[in-house]
Amino acid sequence: MEYTVNFKSHGKSVAVEEGKTILDAAALASIAVESNCGAAGTCGKCKVHVVEGFDPKAERIGTKFFTEDEMNDGWVLACKYEVHQDLTVEVPIQKDAFSRKTKLNSLLDNITINSPIKKVYLELEKPSINDQCPDFERIIRALDLDITKQKPTRGLLAVIPKTLRDHQFRITAVVNDDQLMWIEGGDTSSQKYGMVFDIGTTTVVCLLINLDTGEIEGAAAETNPQNVFGADVISRINYVISKQDTGEGLAQCHEKVTTCMNDLAMRAVAEAGVDKTMVYEATVVGNTTMSELFAGVDPSYLAPSPFIPGYVSGVHMTGKELGFDINPESHVYLLPNIAGYVGSDTVGVILGTHIHERPQYSGAIDVGTNGEIVLAGNGRILACSTAAGPAFEGAQIKFGMRAADGAIEAVYIDNEAGTCKVDVIGKKKAKGICGSGILDAIAQLYKNNIIDFRGRFRGDADDIHPALKERMVKTEEGYEFILATAEESVKKRPVVICQKDIGELQLAKGAIYAGFKVLMAEMGITIEDMKEIMIAGAFGSYIKVDSAMAIGLFPELPNGKIISIGNAASEGARLALVSQEERELCAELARKSEYIELSSRPDFQDEYVMAMYLPRS
Amino acid sequence: MEYTVNFKSHGKSVAVEEGKTILDAAALASIAVESNCGAAGTCGKCKVHVVEGFDPKAERIGTKFFTEDEMNDGWVLACKYEVHQDLTVEVPIQKDAFSRKTKLNSLLDNITINSPIKKVYLELEKPSINDQCPDFERIIRALDLDITKQKPTRGLLAVIPKTLRDHQFRITAVVNDDQLMWIEGGDTSSQKYGMVFDIGTTTVVCLLINLDTGEIEGAAAETNPQNVFGADVISRINYVISKQDTGEGLAQCHEKVTTCMNDLAMRAVAEAGVDKTMVYEATVVGNTTMSELFAGVDPSYLAPSPFIPGYVSGVHMTGKELGFDINPESHVYLLPNIAGYVGSDTVGVILGTHIHERPQYSGAIDVGTNGEIVLAGNGRILACSTAAGPAFEGAQIKFGMRAADGAIEAVYIDNEAGTCKVDVIGKKKAKGICGSGILDAIAQLYKNNIIDFRGRFRGDADDIHPALKERMVKTEEGYEFILATAEESVKKRPVVICQKDIGELQLAKGAIYAGFKVLMAEMGITIEDMKEIMIAGAFGSYIKVDSAMAIGLFPELPNGKIISIGNAASEGARLALVSQEERELCAELARKSEYIELSSRPDFQDEYVMAMYLPRS
Repeated sequence: MEYTVNFKSHGKSVAVEEGKTILDAAALASIAVESNCGAAGTCGKCKVHVVEGFDPKAERIGTKFFTEDEMNDGWVLACKYEVHQDLTVEVPIQKDAFSRKTKLNSLLDNITINSPIKKVYLELEKPSINDQCPDFERIIRALDLDITKQKPTRGLLAVIPKTLRDHQFRITAVVNDDQLMWIEGGDTSSQKYGMVFDIGTTTVVCLLINLDTGEIEGAAAETNPQNVFGADVISRINYVISKQDTGEGLAQCHEKVTTCMNDLAMRAVAEAGVDKTMVYEATVVGNTTMSELFAGVDPSYLAPSPFIPGYVSGVHMTGKELGFDINPESHVYLLPNIAGYVGSDTVGVILGTHIHERPQYSGAIDVGTNGEIVLAGNGRILACSTAAGPAFEGAQIKFGMRAADGAIEAVYIDNEAGTCKVDVIGKKKAKGICGSGILDAIAQLYKNNIIDFRGRFRGDADDIHPALKERMVKTEEGYEFILATAEESVKKRPVVICQKDIGELQLAKGAIYAGFKVLMAEMGITIEDMKEIMIAGAFGSYIKVDSAMAIGLFPELPNGKIISIGNAASEGARLALVSQEERELCAELARKSEYIELSSRPDFQDEYVMAMYLPRS
Repeated sequence: MEYTVNFKSHGKSVAVEEGKTILDAAALASIAVESNCGAAGTCGKCKVHVVEGFDPKAERIGTKFFTEDEMNDGWVLACKYEVHQDLTVEVPIQKDAFSRKTKLNSLLDNITINSPIKKVYLELEKPSINDQCPDFERIIRALDLDITKQKPTRGLLAVIPKTLRDHQFRITAVVNDDQLMWIEGGDTSSQKYGMVFDIGTTTVVCLLINLDTGEIEGAAAETNPQNVFGADVISRINYVISKQDTGEGLAQCHEKVTTCMNDLAMRAVAEAGVDKTMVYEATVVGNTTMSELFAGVDPSYLAPSPFIPGYVSGVHMTGKELGFDINPESHVYLLPNIAGYVGSDTVGVILGTHIHERPQYSGAIDVGTNGEIVLAGNGRILACSTAAGPAFEGAQIKFGMRAADGAIEAVYIDNEAGTCKVDVIGKKKAKGICGSGILDAIAQLYKNNIIDFRGRFRGDADDIHPALKERMVKTEEGYEFILATAEESVKKRPVVICQKDIGELQLAKGAIYAGFKVLMAEMGITIEDMKEIMIAGAFGSYIKVDSAMAIGLFPELPNGKIISIGNAASEGARLALVSQEERELCAELARKSEYIELSSRPDFQDEYVMAMYLPRS
């Protein structure tokens, strides 16, 4: 038996076999539903609302994630609720993390826009018995291009004859790197677009770029729909490995992300009012696993030592082969990676900051599920990756969530006054806590002596204000601290940060700190030599730098400064899109970068153990 | 209602709507059924045998094409017999014209084989934590190729990781023009193949070529399945035009020919016992219409004056986009055309003969549905096309058929003895007459004074032997001459050549002769300056040169000779396949060739009228 699941919120319906879960159905429909526990029913992220066809008698798993009202009203865990009749489901639409806050940096104002894509309006001579020049060659002749260098595609040749005659031989030629790639009727020479895709493990971002000005004219972001196969790259690789005999896992991952990218592209052009066929080129960045899944290359050999990627070179593709509904002859350039765990997103950071030209020594850290670290100076670029874990993105955190409406993003604790206040995104009641909020909470707890340098709650301390002590609740799994009370919360249950949450963050920050120290050792410098550390990633623009310093996420620089630079990976991809010179530089910088494998460095282990503690001043 | 038509002979079944014809069903199944009258029921070529489901009471059209036994046994015209129940049908398998006789010429024994495809066996170092070089870059490193020049496809990258590990990093790299294009497990370096396709309007030929030796290791040929849309290029263009609003006609023509090409490719590799994935490259020739239909470009603007093709440059494609089941990353190169009616098949003749280097002045004629003529010398290459009509391929001829079993291919008339003897292909009873037979018959009739110089039967002449006069039968449409008597014929009906047949051939030969004279005038030479005329095309190798001279198909050369050179178009495509230098030369020669438009030349009309007469000695 098959039943239909209608995802009302997304305007999509799919038929699934009886007994499949709503999460299965969503996966089939390429609808992103947050899910971080691999469908174990333990993370509670995949809550959806069954508005028609809900069976109140169905077995319920994950009851702790719901209020009684929600339980009765048809809210269920998508990963556990099975389809036994036709259903209509609403998936809560997540506000885009991207559109909220992330801004592109302006470190590089002096880049010359020089897209390889040119558009030229032509009024051609009409053919006659005395001028039988064929259609394609007629255009090349008018463009004064070298006919012997042309490699026209079938797609281009197919549109030429009719377009010429439908428009009385007045057309706009689209030329890519001296190759005619497309023609359009009439004069469209002022409309020339490209796209940047940043495939994060958690979030996929698409930017619509005006190729004449380099400006961003549209943007869209969405949860990476591969999340149904796991929250982090290792889970996704394991999913691919589990289906390696048929290749189905790889095919699913590829299809999910490309479908998502195309959806984002369509949203971006629709919002900007741009003709989708006038998007001629795209650049793509992502970590190495995302890069391979996007390209359809099996990333299985990235997981075990010695962590070998299929390729690191940049890959040229066509929009057509990826199923992108932009210009049919569009080119898509996947930027090069550096190593198995330092991907093209880090290359984007390197290019986006021109770190090789910054005051030396300059460092960059892209804080995400993995923390990639770059250190440049003395003609070298060193890079490494630390398994920071998804804590910074709110995963593995009890009340963790993406930086969306309802997320606590800042915390203010005052032990003198006994107060704890929070800032919530959207100024609404709290639903959870996002990465920057976690960092801030821990910094505040530590500053107010509520946790000690090992990150432990000081449950029996007598120097904590009673009002704050009241917020410190002992549970079976240790203490937790109430950031938002039941009254301040959407769910009417307190939003807390627990002992385990703090431990997760310590692991993450320790890995980054230790990685940085190894790179400095490899470069032969000390902290005194550092001029700056740039914090990249959407996360980097949210956090309070002093909170990050307070917990020791980044080293303090006696002679330098910490700069938050926003999504530098996308910025690098944008540079590579709008400038041929930057694109060439990008490949050069990627090849030049030296990858430092931390797992084979004993000094990393030593630093790591030390770095997990909070800094004692 | 839909019914199933099972084409037993081809192992294919299709469902068609009630009332569709068997020819419709065959078209749907991409099965080539000869049909030259546009499904009018008048050519009788599309005879098929309904072995199951035949309804003896169904209305019968074209009864004259069948014996009574055939009528009762379920033989029908595929274009007229409608499907009103499930049917099982046998389509007579045509012997391949190609495999019977055509041989490649050996004008050019000194071509150096230099395919851009190289294969290199590699035993790679396995990766380790101290050598984390990625898979793709590891191969490039071992090949000592420039990594910055590589443009790997997704398809290549996708096969690398598993192939390396399944074969302990012992693999064979396939390199195309210094680009890694594919890898195979183990040592396969001795197996390297390419293909040549010659898309004739009537017949599609595929040759399997060993890229190391240049030798032909397999071949297959089939009726061009576009024939259901008409026998000649104009009918096919008109078919495309009739469905131009939806583009369906073009799509059908493209799909039919590419499907046919792939079928031929599979037959050729199967017969030669070659692994289909080891076919890495193909070259394709055809006339300009065939070229455009193959590429999927609308040829509609070729038909009306000023006869403008969509392109003439060579087109690079991938086997993948064409649906060819050879190597997934294979390249397909469609050779350049010269003009709307001088296609890449003529370029193939020019390259295949190196006509620019032959003793000057040298001419070449490719005799087919169109007669393309080339004249070279004095640093110039002139080309034109004459609408010779399909007479040379047996179409528009009462008993015309392809050069297959049962076709009369030679005729011997002796007016002294009163005898008429014929050679039949396969030494069987006669079924019809092929192009070379028609030519021979007319030459013999003329030599024996049975027709006059205007091509008219001398019905009332008294100098014809009574036994031959008996063979000259008067009908409503004029005289016809019995070549094979009822007893000598398969169908127990005489096989004849009629007055209209002779007229068709006069038109065809007149056009070719007149075209040749225009080219000589353009070159500023006379017949005395000609050193040779090369007769290309499969047809060219069948005909008796003296018969062709006798009827004036080619000019007599006082100071030169006529040479039959076989399928020089394919030969050119083979040279372009096996030699990079020849491929470059090919594009150069195509650009250099000057197209002479006969329709705008008054001298052509004058010559044409004169040239229709048979030569008086």
